[in-house]
Amino acid sequence: MPTIVVDVMPKAELLDPQGKAVSGALSRLGKDAFTDVRIGKRFELTVEGEVTDEILAEARRIADDILSNSVIEDVVGIEVVE
Amino acid sequence: MPTIVVDVMPKAELLDPQGKAVSGALSRLGKDAFTDVRIGKRFELTVEGEVTDEILAEARRIADDILSNSVIEDVVGIEVVE
Repeated sequence: MPTIVVDVMPKAELLDPQGKAVSGALSRLGKDAFTDVRIGKRFELTVEGEVTDEILAEARRIADDILSNSVIEDVVGIEVVE
Repeated sequence: MPTIVVDVMPKAELLDPQGKAVSGALSRLGKDAFTDVRIGKRFELTVEGEVTDEILAEARRIADDILSNSVIEDVVGIEVVE
């Protein structure tokens, strides 16, 4: 069944405390290759049947209005995965 | 700067209460195109300089050992984004 994947990340200009915590933990563990970590959400919306343009448009609206908080988050990707 | 994106999702055989809540909310709002919702995490690891095979292997280890809990979650994707 096709799945629409929606990726939501904290806005770049905002501090991401979860990401900062992981980033600090990686440094303490000696894993210095990674200079920054940011943590967002990945939504998988399962669609019964075919993903029409209409359903994709609906998914975009849902992503903007319901799945993300536009004050602090950006929808960084919407893609259809079979 | 290149970024390594790590996607972590709750295992398929486990209930995902967050996803169920969103799925129920969508139904109540009359958005019936989506039969199921699952919610996972998206990590963006920033790398200074080039992403070598070694750094990518390190990212895989971190994804399995630190960023995900293998009892309840699967790492569903690791990709490099420029």
